[in-house]
Amino acid sequence: MRVGVLTGGGDCPGLNAVIRAVVRKGVQDYAYTFTGYRDGWRGLLHGRSVPLNIPAVRGILPRGGTVLGSSRTNPFTQDDGVARIRETLTKDEVDALIAIGGEDTLGVAARLHGEHGIPCVGVPKTIDNDLSATDYTFGFDTAVNIATEAIDRLHTTAESHMRVLVVEVMGRHAGWIALHSGLAGGANVILIPEQRFDLDEICGWVTSRFTSSYAPIVVVAEGAMPRDGDLVLKDAAAQDSFGHVRLSGVGEWLAKEIERRTGKEARTTVLGHVQRGGTPSAFDRWLATRFGLHAIAAVRDGDFGKMVALRGTDIVRVDLGEATARLKTVSAARYEEAKVFFG
Amino acid sequence: MRVGVLTGGGDCPGLNAVIRAVVRKGVQDYAYTFTGYRDGWRGLLHGRSVPLNIPAVRGILPRGGTVLGSSRTNPFTQDDGVARIRETLTKDEVDALIAIGGEDTLGVAARLHGEHGIPCVGVPKTIDNDLSATDYTFGFDTAVNIATEAIDRLHTTAESHMRVLVVEVMGRHAGWIALHSGLAGGANVILIPEQRFDLDEICGWVTSRFTSSYAPIVVVAEGAMPRDGDLVLKDAAAQDSFGHVRLSGVGEWLAKEIERRTGKEARTTVLGHVQRGGTPSAFDRWLATRFGLHAIAAVRDGDFGKMVALRGTDIVRVDLGEATARLKTVSAARYEEAKVFFG
Amino acid sequence: MRVGVLTGGGDCPGLNAVIRAVVRKGVQDYAYTFTGYRDGWRGLLHGRSVPLNIPAVRGILPRGGTVLGSSRTNPFTQDDGVARIRETLTKDEVDALIAIGGEDTLGVAARLHGEHGIPCVGVPKTIDNDLSATDYTFGFDTAVNIATEAIDRLHTTAESHMRVLVVEVMGRHAGWIALHSGLAGGANVILIPEQRFDLDEICGWVTSRFTSSYAPIVVVAEGAMPRDGDLVLKDAAAQDSFGHVRLSGVGEWLAKEIERRTGKEARTTVLGHVQRGGTPSAFDRWLATRFGLHAIAAVRDGDFGKMVALRGTDIVRVDLGEATARLKTVSAARYEEAKVFFG
Amino acid sequence: MRVGVLTGGGDCPGLNAVIRAVVRKGVQDYAYTFTGYRDGWRGLLHGRSVPLNIPAVRGILPRGGTVLGSSRTNPFTQDDGVARIRETLTKDEVDALIAIGGEDTLGVAARLHGEHGIPCVGVPKTIDNDLSATDYTFGFDTAVNIATEAIDRLHTTAESHMRVLVVEVMGRHAGWIALHSGLAGGANVILIPEQRFDLDEICGWVTSRFTSSYAPIVVVAEGAMPRDGDLVLKDAAAQDSFGHVRLSGVGEWLAKEIERRTGKEARTTVLGHVQRGGTPSAFDRWLATRFGLHAIAAVRDGDFGKMVALRGTDIVRVDLGEATARLKTVSAARYEEAKVFFG
Repeated sequence: MRVGVLTGGGDCPGLNAVIRAVVRKGVQDYAYTFTGYRDGWRGLLHGRSVPLNIPAVRGILPRGGTVLGSSRTNPFTQDDGVARIRETLTKDEVDALIAIGGEDTLGVAARLHGEHGIPCVGVPKTIDNDLSATDYTFGFDTAVNIATEAIDRLHTTAESHMRVLVVEVMGRHAGWIALHSGLAGGANVILIPEQRFDLDEICGWVTSRFTSSYAPIVVVAEGAMPRDGDLVLKDAAAQDSFGHVRLSGVGEWLAKEIERRTGKEARTTVLGHVQRGGTPSAFDRWLATRFGLHAIAAVRDGDFGKMVALRGTDIVRVDLGEATARLKTVSAARYEEAKVFFG
Repeated sequence: MRVGVLTGGGDCPGLNAVIRAVVRKGVQDYAYTFTGYRDGWRGLLHGRSVPLNIPAVRGILPRGGTVLGSSRTNPFTQDDGVARIRETLTKDEVDALIAIGGEDTLGVAARLHGEHGIPCVGVPKTIDNDLSATDYTFGFDTAVNIATEAIDRLHTTAESHMRVLVVEVMGRHAGWIALHSGLAGGANVILIPEQRFDLDEICGWVTSRFTSSYAPIVVVAEGAMPRDGDLVLKDAAAQDSFGHVRLSGVGEWLAKEIERRTGKEARTTVLGHVQRGGTPSAFDRWLATRFGLHAIAAVRDGDFGKMVALRGTDIVRVDLGEATARLKTVSAARYEEAKVFFG
Repeated sequence: MRVGVLTGGGDCPGLNAVIRAVVRKGVQDYAYTFTGYRDGWRGLLHGRSVPLNIPAVRGILPRGGTVLGSSRTNPFTQDDGVARIRETLTKDEVDALIAIGGEDTLGVAARLHGEHGIPCVGVPKTIDNDLSATDYTFGFDTAVNIATEAIDRLHTTAESHMRVLVVEVMGRHAGWIALHSGLAGGANVILIPEQRFDLDEICGWVTSRFTSSYAPIVVVAEGAMPRDGDLVLKDAAAQDSFGHVRLSGVGEWLAKEIERRTGKEARTTVLGHVQRGGTPSAFDRWLATRFGLHAIAAVRDGDFGKMVALRGTDIVRVDLGEATARLKTVSAARYEEAKVFFG
Repeated sequence: MRVGVLTGGGDCPGLNAVIRAVVRKGVQDYAYTFTGYRDGWRGLLHGRSVPLNIPAVRGILPRGGTVLGSSRTNPFTQDDGVARIRETLTKDEVDALIAIGGEDTLGVAARLHGEHGIPCVGVPKTIDNDLSATDYTFGFDTAVNIATEAIDRLHTTAESHMRVLVVEVMGRHAGWIALHSGLAGGANVILIPEQRFDLDEICGWVTSRFTSSYAPIVVVAEGAMPRDGDLVLKDAAAQDSFGHVRLSGVGEWLAKEIERRTGKEARTTVLGHVQRGGTPSAFDRWLATRFGLHAIAAVRDGDFGKMVALRGTDIVRVDLGEATARLKTVSAARYEEAKVFFG
């Protein structure tokens, strides 16, 4: 049995831990051999592979990124995409595929299996934690730790200068990183994409915080939007050096608006890619490792068209198709729960 | 409504986050007042309390330890223990108690409620993660992070000198910290209290690791024992400076035995109290905060005799009596899962 | 003897460590009493003080920011500034002042001592490390550690996606943070204010890095400028939401230019205030503590008009006037030394 | 020109950074080639080498340990040691040697150069920072950071349980790690090898600390000794499992003595190898990198028999013979300076 492995989409701490676990268990317990494909589905389209064996996965557990490289290439938007994938698999004598990725990568795996009969097992990866079929995805805990540490650091600066500090964190469609790091870091306002925000309300919290002689930290997910969304688009639009209209981040826009409305100095920190790089947290290494062990076990069982998922403390298998069907967003109740700390 | 709050047992990162969340929500949403009792049940026996209000909980979220102090005092082993507690509660006009602690502390709360009708709500705390009613307890993730970081650091020393490095971590009755940090840190042997270990097998893994030109890391829970348990007791017994027989740790004993049997140099690191001190991880702050919010909500609902618990990503209420009835240990299947990385 | 203490300018990890050391030694060894002034020189102008004794400095060693608050108020630009300061000192019966701050704060102390005979001792503070009289200032090591950790994290993202990552760090007039964190983090280009940069040269390094199948990290100090400086001003100017012209950061400008010229995707991370907040590194706590001990010893010796400074591993006293006379910038030789790692 | 490189003695964060800098500058600026010798002088005795070029040093900057391996082998205690080294150098066509190590390794280099005319340049390495010719050695700052973080964590446990916590840190002959981490961590007692300690005095500080309702942290270097040194030897001697007399650490002995004399519970943490492993701090990477650049420049200049050293912020060259002649210990004045924080 020869198994192909690929990683797709944005990079995420824990990818290497999955790869290592798949290979260790596959080789030792099942005597499988492996082929690693370069840069996600692109590697399968172009037949670009790397050897994947026990020496190749030594020492990669604590390393961020992915030794296989990644891309956002989608074979279904390419000419003869599926045929070329099938050709590569035949040529390489690969019997099954493990695809590690987010909604897009797993969506491709679901169709390759469902519509074309290619034996695929999926491993969910999204730093935003927004896949509904699993309690958590690896990478999320690392991102939350990094954002929380940044908030910890910003508290002292906020207070020494009595300034508003706005921290923009990742989360285009779901506010999990903002919610968890905001709660863990003791933020005074948390803004998420799931709930349009009201500038007057925010300025109320900010002012009330200053009243008690403390300075406020505002955590905002990059995808958060004001009640009147057009406002941002219009105000933040500015010509960049190429003469194109450019939309600057919500964090910077928010700081300016707070400054204008409250008269208090405000500053922004955009954490950006720092949140998704570097060594994974212990939780993410543990989760990624267990995902890897259970993915190769699914291959062994011939249980294709499935994705591994965390439920409580158990790893289960769910249908690949359903797995990516629905975005897991922050519920109104969970956001309400956090509001006791606002202001 | 006035609510008493106490923390009992060994300290654990996240205790202050619980206290803060209880008080913030209690004051703001329910207009409750609070009394903090010093040093666990001892404070109730002796009527030693501290004021607990919003200023008192400011800034404590990221701080380890407990601002209320702790002890292992059990009122049921004291003369008139229950009567004295009742007296304190009456004098202080306290209507309900929130007890944050482990098996012992919660066991007392269960009896005070069940046998004596004192309205109690429990919040589980055990750094060892060995309470069966909840997926996780706060403090555990912090301890696993610290142990994992230590293992990361030890890898380079092991390899530069081709030595065996034994790391003794917490876990007297359950091997969760050893299992999680061992998996996350890429240990080559993990030993837990749930499974008696075999020295020959360990030496086999150690030797096989050296064969592939790498040096082994052995993670051992403080409560792990060899197949022939008497062996440890006899060998490790040594007179201390007071002339008493003293049992040194399993880590040091193990290093000596491995050295003797394999001829390879072996060294021990005992992480000790470092694992339970300092600022909580983001996960632990988040979990402790949510436990606090839900505990005070249970008080509000008059839902006494309950303990808050994590199930998946939800906080639920379970019966205090059942909550502490059974130790949550590492199952044979979970330990077996990890063994693919041994050697 | 009563000694006044104040902190001025931007906040910096280690300020509290200085305050603690001054008070501990002053009280215990010399039986002095202390008055803390709020928000730098502003506190002296308005007679706003806080008690400063051993209980007040307990536990502040590891905390960032300053318990005394800070401001950029300059008494020489205020009506009757010096007279009001003298009045406050007389009213409070303060015999000497310890001023902890950067160029501005220490410049005021130098004039108050030199021109008005007020007994002052200075403690240098600049996160940018640009004071010529001392080998290092506290806060710098912490900032370099934070920037280096961010660069470490960005390497994996850069390589997984083959992107250029630009990291903008602090340093308006001196490139010490960029130089040290760039060297420590293994950056492929380091740009500092002392040396105008050449976009073509940068693009050459970037391209050469990609040629060897790696992705480049560019570290740029916020004050770095291209050979043709006007270019930045013109291009980056954009109207903000108030209609004012607003200069966006050099980091973002650089990423766009690199993208445009090399055709490679480029992203920017602006570390901002995260670099100056939070707990000080061990080196900064040690340096700040020793500065504090030696500042109060200078007061004891009646050695006013002096600033404490680090020379090798010794703390010495230098003239306050000279201390701030010259900016310590990165020499051409030191920058040249780092260039072997470019590209 | 072909240059040999070796690392000797105990491992130390920063060794890889030196190797990388030597090779980068040697190849790029001088067109040199390199031979890496395995396991210190042992590699030269047995002719065991590894290729050392730019690909070989990629990515090693942030990694602890040494890619060349290490040993404590001394060629002067081996039969024909010098002749065999000369033979290896001739066979490999190596024109000069860079030896990175501590007193022993550099002592060998000094004799090889001075007595046998072999062109050697030394780079100082000692985690204990006890070489007199240089202000700092790399590895020291990392060790101090790790010890300080541990002390930070232990404070909360000490206070929550009102216990004495003894932390044993590295330092057999010099107390630098204890002094710096003790000052940075806010320890209440610091004990170093340079000053015999008095148990009564220690117990006085411990008791005074409890009086002010805080719990004491005692930092002790592994080489610290009581006034009556024999006391430790006698008391701590205990038969190990092989029947040999075994000397347990000073930390554990101290905890027992404090417990016995003050009646307060005391616990010990022995940090051990964790202090010397893992990724180097930013300072150590910067220092190690600059040492490497200057060592290869010395080779270029034909300036053999020299060691690079840090003086203030400059790298200088000192005579190899003198460099290791004297141990740099903590002076009485520097220890006295720290005492204001005791108790």
